[in-house]
Amino acid sequence: MRAAYHEELASIRDSLVEMAHLVGSAMGRATSALLDADLQLAEGVISADVKVDALQRDLEHRAITLLARQQPVATDLRTVVTSLRMSADLERSGDLAQHVAKLARLRHPERAVPHDLRRTILEMGQLAQRLMAQAAEVLITQDVDAALQLEKDDDRMDQLHRMIFQHLLDDRWQHGVETAVDVTLVGRYYERFADHAVSVARRVVYLVTGQYADELATDPPAPP
Amino acid sequence: MRAAYHEELASIRDSLVEMAHLVGSAMGRATSALLDADLQLAEGVISADVKVDALQRDLEHRAITLLARQQPVATDLRTVVTSLRMSADLERSGDLAQHVAKLARLRHPERAVPHDLRRTILEMGQLAQRLMAQAAEVLITQDVDAALQLEKDDDRMDQLHRMIFQHLLDDRWQHGVETAVDVTLVGRYYERFADHAVSVARRVVYLVTGQYADELATDPPAPP
Repeated sequence: MRAAYHEELASIRDSLVEMAHLVGSAMGRATSALLDADLQLAEGVISADVKVDALQRDLEHRAITLLARQQPVATDLRTVVTSLRMSADLERSGDLAQHVAKLARLRHPERAVPHDLRRTILEMGQLAQRLMAQAAEVLITQDVDAALQLEKDDDRMDQLHRMIFQHLLDDRWQHGVETAVDVTLVGRYYERFADHAVSVARRVVYLVTGQYADELATDPPAPP
Repeated sequence: MRAAYHEELASIRDSLVEMAHLVGSAMGRATSALLDADLQLAEGVISADVKVDALQRDLEHRAITLLARQQPVATDLRTVVTSLRMSADLERSGDLAQHVAKLARLRHPERAVPHDLRRTILEMGQLAQRLMAQAAEVLITQDVDAALQLEKDDDRMDQLHRMIFQHLLDDRWQHGVETAVDVTLVGRYYERFADHAVSVARRVVYLVTGQYADELATDPPAPP
């Protein structure tokens, strides 16, 4: 009974890792589709999201079956419940990758992102993908330090997001309102995607330490 | 034991209803703060969100305790797990109301929303609040028809959201890029808020009928 239980729990964890890999890769491809106005790539990302949704439904089903059959308590119970939460984060991340791809499709054959923002958007896309890869790794290793590092790395995403706004609000902005709207939305999609990666890592920290990540991340008080 | 169990389940339901009321009211006040550039009201919404967060943490704690102590199965188990999901929807809705209020604060003493979009934004705010009130009612009554109606009412939100974009992309737009960015974000906050209200209603439908809302909402096939 216990062996079956731990197997089921491991298989739920594997599904989370797979979801994280899928959505990270989807965001990478969505970013390429956006920057290169690649319609085929965009369509691929859009249609692949059903797989993430299916994984989530299946994971939810297995988690509930596990709760019903094995009736875990304490840490094990919290692990299962947290897995459900993390799967919701990952499913939503998949939607956000899909949103980026849909914007690429909407503007095709034009490019939605103007030349002078390409580098920033490319960095946001790569960072989003990297943060999600780190989240997948944290799911496997349960490494608290790596999870806290992920939060720090997310600061760069916030910085990039602010850079986009600065650029948009610069008097020299010359790409018109439609592009401003597109860039505003896309910036938000990347930022939210990164938030979900951070959220997955935070939940791992909580499971491992019983403390919330922000309590652990606080530096010791400075000497008087 | 069973009586205590049903009491605990009812108290979780009550907390969900309270959360829905709080976030609905927060969105109503945030909308007023936004349209009237009312800083005090905005600050009130921003600081009140801690209460929603606290309710969610408390609800999560009680749900996990209930799972551990009572070890529910079948429908009861699904109800508890779904409550956790709904509380995440509601917590996120509170964040979105807070985002609207923060935008009001950021632009104060200016108004973030230009005159010609006031009516649309007001309707989005009122509709958002109404949808959340309907979601609260569906939580209490478990009325499937009311839940499906809520999805139809949400179509109006999508329509309003499209109207905003049409307005933004009209050649006659004369409010500059900063306002376009603000309006783009605010439109998205309302739309996502409404999505979460719909999501709560959908989960109730699934609990009551075992079917997903989109299966039930599908009209019968037309005769050949």
